[in-house]
Amino acid sequence: MADRLSPGGDTAAGGDTAAGGDKPSGLSTSIDAAIIAVGSELLTPHKTDTNSLFISQVLNDLGIAVACKTIVGDRRAELTSHIAHALDRHRILILTGGLGPTDDDLTREVVAAHLGLPMDEDPAIVAAMERRFAARGWKMPAVNRRQALVPRGATVLANPNGTAPGLWIEHGASVIALLPGPPREMKPMMDGDVRARLAPLAGHVRLHRRLVRVSGRGESAVEEMVQPIYSGWLNQAPPIETTILAGLGQVELHLLLQSSDAVQAAAALEAAVNQLTPVLGPDLVSIDGRELEAVVGDLLRGRGWRVALAESCTGGLATSRLTDVPGSSDYVERSVVAYSNEAKIELLGVDAALVTAHGAVSEPVAAAMASGIRDRARVNVGIGITGIAGPGGGSEHKPVGTVCIAVAGRETRVRSYRFPGGREMVKALSANTAIDMLRRFLIEG
Amino acid sequence: MADRLSPGGDTAAGGDTAAGGDKPSGLSTSIDAAIIAVGSELLTPHKTDTNSLFISQVLNDLGIAVACKTIVGDRRAELTSHIAHALDRHRILILTGGLGPTDDDLTREVVAAHLGLPMDEDPAIVAAMERRFAARGWKMPAVNRRQALVPRGATVLANPNGTAPGLWIEHGASVIALLPGPPREMKPMMDGDVRARLAPLAGHVRLHRRLVRVSGRGESAVEEMVQPIYSGWLNQAPPIETTILAGLGQVELHLLLQSSDAVQAAAALEAAVNQLTPVLGPDLVSIDGRELEAVVGDLLRGRGWRVALAESCTGGLATSRLTDVPGSSDYVERSVVAYSNEAKIELLGVDAALVTAHGAVSEPVAAAMASGIRDRARVNVGIGITGIAGPGGGSEHKPVGTVCIAVAGRETRVRSYRFPGGREMVKALSANTAIDMLRRFLIEG
Repeated sequence: MADRLSPGGDTAAGGDTAAGGDKPSGLSTSIDAAIIAVGSELLTPHKTDTNSLFISQVLNDLGIAVACKTIVGDRRAELTSHIAHALDRHRILILTGGLGPTDDDLTREVVAAHLGLPMDEDPAIVAAMERRFAARGWKMPAVNRRQALVPRGATVLANPNGTAPGLWIEHGASVIALLPGPPREMKPMMDGDVRARLAPLAGHVRLHRRLVRVSGRGESAVEEMVQPIYSGWLNQAPPIETTILAGLGQVELHLLLQSSDAVQAAAALEAAVNQLTPVLGPDLVSIDGRELEAVVGDLLRGRGWRVALAESCTGGLATSRLTDVPGSSDYVERSVVAYSNEAKIELLGVDAALVTAHGAVSEPVAAAMASGIRDRARVNVGIGITGIAGPGGGSEHKPVGTVCIAVAGRETRVRSYRFPGGREMVKALSANTAIDMLRRFLIEG
Repeated sequence: MADRLSPGGDTAAGGDTAAGGDKPSGLSTSIDAAIIAVGSELLTPHKTDTNSLFISQVLNDLGIAVACKTIVGDRRAELTSHIAHALDRHRILILTGGLGPTDDDLTREVVAAHLGLPMDEDPAIVAAMERRFAARGWKMPAVNRRQALVPRGATVLANPNGTAPGLWIEHGASVIALLPGPPREMKPMMDGDVRARLAPLAGHVRLHRRLVRVSGRGESAVEEMVQPIYSGWLNQAPPIETTILAGLGQVELHLLLQSSDAVQAAAALEAAVNQLTPVLGPDLVSIDGRELEAVVGDLLRGRGWRVALAESCTGGLATSRLTDVPGSSDYVERSVVAYSNEAKIELLGVDAALVTAHGAVSEPVAAAMASGIRDRARVNVGIGITGIAGPGGGSEHKPVGTVCIAVAGRETRVRSYRFPGGREMVKALSANTAIDMLRRFLIEG
């Protein structure tokens, strides 16, 4: 297992009690952090902590390594024990969850008890919560007063997205941040107040990144293409680390570089990315982290073009993804989900004889859907998607996962695919591929 | 957050060193377990442990609660410390990952060192690995011999899907299982050998579950409605534990019961669910775990009805969710994403004067979209959704998040909402609410 993002040597504040040295590895920072996610639901087979991913990102940005992550239920003794264990070994502890108003929300109380800090009610928090409830025409329930308790000496972190404020505690050499559990409350707090307060602790070295997105190739094919390039990056000073991650129909290349010189780091990453560009060719989606649908949006906008979609097996998912981009109403004119043959004929002008001759899932029908929606919507480019998402509807010649996708501009391109996986995976891969076909059409056409 | 899924009282073998008792809560097994996932890549912002979900499911099935989960990098000192901490407090420890052949793979060695067990090379494992390599025409690399080292007294667990065997160690009162990291190797081992070996420890008690879905109310409102009921369940024998989880526009109630009698357990859960039904009324989506879109599908199918949708701000997401259900092509006839005013007028027959008079985001336009698509598709019921997903497009009177949704059958129902959050959250809440309005229309109409 490649280990180039792990804590760099057991030099953490907590010290190292075990025999045997770890071999040196990247991210060699002077401090590291522990993360504890609190919530019994996070211990069920159905749910897990994902907050720590965002928290790790912010910590890594600051050059702070994550030494361990723990998930604990809403239980006093267990939580106390893990907090003590973390603070014994690590200077920074980030807790998320357990700041709610009910009896089960213990984080605030357990941290204060462990540190021996009394708790005081903060009238400003009570007032802010009362205003928040009043704005919706509600009265604040009495239980919410718990959320206004502050361990003595702690700094309150404002939470514009919820009732539970965060807390920042400096205690001896330890730094402890308590963040709410809901991601939309936790993220702005971690990225704002907590990042600003951690920065002075972290020293001058920062983690710099570039995210390169690639489509149309698998993880190992991309690895094979770029390995000769990124292996060279490891020998330069400072080295650039590369991580390859596969998603549905897409591959991400994460380039990471630690440096105290932001200008030099940006130049080194830019030079690295420029080495990738000719190798990846049209499979390169973006070199700046932009999502596929945003790239397509920018290409359409750049041409002053509008698009319309005719979807069948994807059931609206391709349009939904395109319209996840703010401002997409400028270039997504309309879309039709034509599940039934009648809808294909009526709304898209697909010739009934074409359906009879080739079947609804066929390249000619996909092409007719794409040009049909293009003509009716009077836009520059149309997309047609027809396929078998399963689990039913497959046959020997057209098994589940068979999908035909067309892009119609002045010329029409159409291709057939056989996607793996269940219904939702076939839908997701089809939508992604359709949007990527549009991207290739726009950069080549 | 309600906490009724957590380990049941700090009665684990490891004992409880912290002050303050936890209030009694469910899953009161005599033993509980800790899970440690090992691997530095699991501490990056891009990847997290998911093995523990499967491991938790098997443990819970056996009536064993998960007390905590920890993720540690491939680092000797950190890993040793977490193993010691887990074994201090919990009788069962399941480790996954770090059994590979490289220097970074430390789990085997660190566990043996911590327990003071010498390691011996197992010639049977060497022979099996050599056969595995030979079958592919390769010679076993020397590094792989590490994988044949077995702490003295440990039982080797066969791994038909990879080279790294698992290990089962009984040491004093502790039970420790070492499983490989790749899911396709870990899962059969956990579900097979480890389950079989844990079962006698766990006794005859198993965990039985029911999942109840609720919509249209927030987590705390649902809690308030059902609390008087579920609090009574805690006093019956065996008690039923309830966990309330909030999603986007939906709430889940997980009912859990531990019993050695499967028939009795099913009857008790059925009786419990029947108590909820009258209280939740039309907010009750399902008592058998079915998703909202599947419930709507069954209702439509039961009536022999078909639906068509006219979406604006949701961009196809409502239709995509409805069509996530296998067989939904039977009752989803068509859908139109009418972003532009022209598309609303042309495809749905919305009166241009209506748009001018009330604006595109208005109840009259939503109603006209719903009845327009219903008429044009010649189906029983139509849905219209128009709103401002943001971040742009809001005004003082119609801020971002304003969404009007209509369901048109023989009568038309229309409502306005103001959803919180960013673009994707507004889209998700709007789609969920539209599908739920259809559900209510179908059960009441």
